[in-house]
Amino acid sequence: MKIVRYPEKSLWKSILERPHIDAARLGSTVSSILEDVKRDGDEAVKKYEEQFDHVCLQSLSVSKEEMDEAEQLVSDKLKDAILLAYHNIKVFHKSQLTSPSKIETQPGVTCWQKPVAIQRVGLYIPGGSAPLFSTVLMLSTPAKIAGCERIVLCTPPGKDGKVHPAVLFAAKVAGVSDIFKAGGVQAIGAMAYGTESIPYVYKIFGPGNQYVMEAKQQVSLHGVAIDMPAGPSEVCVIADENADCTFIAADLLSQAEHGPDSQVVLITTSEKTLTGVQQEVTAQLESLPRKSIASQALDNSKLVLVHDDDEAMDMANLYAPEHLIIQTDNYAELAERVVNAGSVFLGRYACESAGDYASGTNHTLPTNGYATSYSGVNLDSYFRKITFQHISSRGIANIGPAVAEMAAAESLDGHKNAMTLRMKSLSGN
Amino acid sequence: MKIVRYPEKSLWKSILERPHIDAARLGSTVSSILEDVKRDGDEAVKKYEEQFDHVCLQSLSVSKEEMDEAEQLVSDKLKDAILLAYHNIKVFHKSQLTSPSKIETQPGVTCWQKPVAIQRVGLYIPGGSAPLFSTVLMLSTPAKIAGCERIVLCTPPGKDGKVHPAVLFAAKVAGVSDIFKAGGVQAIGAMAYGTESIPYVYKIFGPGNQYVMEAKQQVSLHGVAIDMPAGPSEVCVIADENADCTFIAADLLSQAEHGPDSQVVLITTSEKTLTGVQQEVTAQLESLPRKSIASQALDNSKLVLVHDDDEAMDMANLYAPEHLIIQTDNYAELAERVVNAGSVFLGRYACESAGDYASGTNHTLPTNGYATSYSGVNLDSYFRKITFQHISSRGIANIGPAVAEMAAAESLDGHKNAMTLRMKSLSGN
Repeated sequence: MKIVRYPEKSLWKSILERPHIDAARLGSTVSSILEDVKRDGDEAVKKYEEQFDHVCLQSLSVSKEEMDEAEQLVSDKLKDAILLAYHNIKVFHKSQLTSPSKIETQPGVTCWQKPVAIQRVGLYIPGGSAPLFSTVLMLSTPAKIAGCERIVLCTPPGKDGKVHPAVLFAAKVAGVSDIFKAGGVQAIGAMAYGTESIPYVYKIFGPGNQYVMEAKQQVSLHGVAIDMPAGPSEVCVIADENADCTFIAADLLSQAEHGPDSQVVLITTSEKTLTGVQQEVTAQLESLPRKSIASQALDNSKLVLVHDDDEAMDMANLYAPEHLIIQTDNYAELAERVVNAGSVFLGRYACESAGDYASGTNHTLPTNGYATSYSGVNLDSYFRKITFQHISSRGIANIGPAVAEMAAAESLDGHKNAMTLRMKSLSGN
Repeated sequence: MKIVRYPEKSLWKSILERPHIDAARLGSTVSSILEDVKRDGDEAVKKYEEQFDHVCLQSLSVSKEEMDEAEQLVSDKLKDAILLAYHNIKVFHKSQLTSPSKIETQPGVTCWQKPVAIQRVGLYIPGGSAPLFSTVLMLSTPAKIAGCERIVLCTPPGKDGKVHPAVLFAAKVAGVSDIFKAGGVQAIGAMAYGTESIPYVYKIFGPGNQYVMEAKQQVSLHGVAIDMPAGPSEVCVIADENADCTFIAADLLSQAEHGPDSQVVLITTSEKTLTGVQQEVTAQLESLPRKSIASQALDNSKLVLVHDDDEAMDMANLYAPEHLIIQTDNYAELAERVVNAGSVFLGRYACESAGDYASGTNHTLPTNGYATSYSGVNLDSYFRKITFQHISSRGIANIGPAVAEMAAAESLDGHKNAMTLRMKSLSGN
């Protein structure tokens, strides 16, 4: 970890620079796989599953039997944990439901906005080193609350052709049953275009490696919406002199173990905290199973000493972290000053892993500085806000002349006519 | 207009097909202009303004004097119309404000979601044949309500180097003062990267031609968010036997006059209405100044006769129109069945041009079928929903074991440690 003390403001941007990712070279590999899936459907998906996941699949669909079997294989303790997490995620996302209210902008002109669920959504759950059943809960639960009619879930199988039982159990808990064994670019293509087995969707959610991200970006240019662009995961911790260095070190390491390109940043007003965290990170790192991954991530990472809270908040807002932990005595005050972040954790006990799994907030969040303009996944991600309006004859009298005037000034006579014909019909001409 | 009577459901998709746009060939032209702007800043913007807008600009910024002068040049009647429209847009978008509510998902685990305005937004207003001051209102008003700190507006000047006075007046009414003379790809590049004069932004809004759209797509792949992808404008009208054919024809023509690639679709349960609309369109077209544009658009357009309301609604939802007008006796009932649309107009008096200008709803809407997954611009488009959580020691007791269990099952020991260290500290170990 690089230590920076009292940096000049002009240097902040370079200090906070994220590791550069060159995705350009993936473009043609990804587009050719997408083309194949578009053309050959299931056959192409199976071909790439054999090539990349080393598995020969008869059927892409997860069967009822496999679902039932999975339920037997998950321990009761893990089941209880998943059920608790599901409950909390459900409660929090349900609280985001809004009811439309009708507004009269002028007498006789009634307008409202109604959230309507996206009919068909696709959820991608990566495979790889760990079964991300937590992501299943995070993406499925709000989709069900929103009322999406068709929820398709794709995830790569293991070499035994099976999906990890905890992934299937989480999907069952969340109420998702259209589950397919497909990973990587071929899964994104299948959900974008549809195959014989896998239904097409209107919006694709979920994390993935650089190939998956590139595939999501490419299909997003051709009519399929995606949750957000993505980059490596990251955390920023703001800490004062009373912060617990052991907790902070554990928080930094929990982020660092995600991948070699993860980034962790500590911003503190206290030299004591800085030194304490540095020592604790070194100590805790030793016993971490994913030590080598975390070590590489720590190479990209910074411990920054600043003069005061103002500098700390300005720097955090400039960084726009995916996760922001504020472990200071005045966390409530600082929380009010957060402008750019995905999800914010307040106080000594709110560790990032609480939000990653079970507190109820979503863990699919904007990385790579996208928190400046994107929200994390939330209930709204599964809705469109459709506007409605009803205009009475009185409404026409109230806004008709303005509409006609503006349409004429924009040289759109057809627009004007649509209004003036109605005005005339009401004036008895 | 092509007339289709009682088509088989299997043919619907091809009947509703939109005119194909081949944007692929624009890619390299657009990327080289963007590169130039990124490298040379103002100098490149001025160069392309000279090349494309045939204007030699000393300064890109609109001066205070130009703003004042513009106010003198707009007629009082148009000013009043703009002020009325602004009022209604403001009332409707203000009604979309939500206040965060804190939720306890478990005792001691408090989560909430707070809308925070995007700090820097860019609004693009096209030039061309008509001054789109209405779009200035539509994009600026919610930006101000949301509280965006920096609102940058770019619009191409005329050959006299000036921006249309109504555009400047609308900007002034909406409270936007950072206005720049830049159009096309160079404007999008300037707002994406920043130049000496034009500030960079985090999200770019606004319509434009195919070059502008391609530029927005390209910058969206590199960290700048955009409002939505876009295509040609379109309307779908659902009408019954009591609908007013004169009004419908005027509505169809108001859409057709937008551009030769606009599309209009009538879905009706009544042969009488179909025939009546066809005759009225022909009659009204004759006196339309933009007749030749509208005629070309009508060539892409369809009048469809269906058996009943069910078919009408299914077809409209399949089409997912930007604008949906429902002129039937039972419009309130049909409104409840809208699943895919940008903005819906109910009854005989709610013409599309009301919403285009002055009813209060936004006119920046998803085209090209994107209504299946995108909302039109609304107040939320200018916010991120940042999640916050606070966890007490009691909260740790309630969710800690579940977090530890799930983290271990995902093989993320660092995540587990962050929680178990806190649990241990509370149990007195």
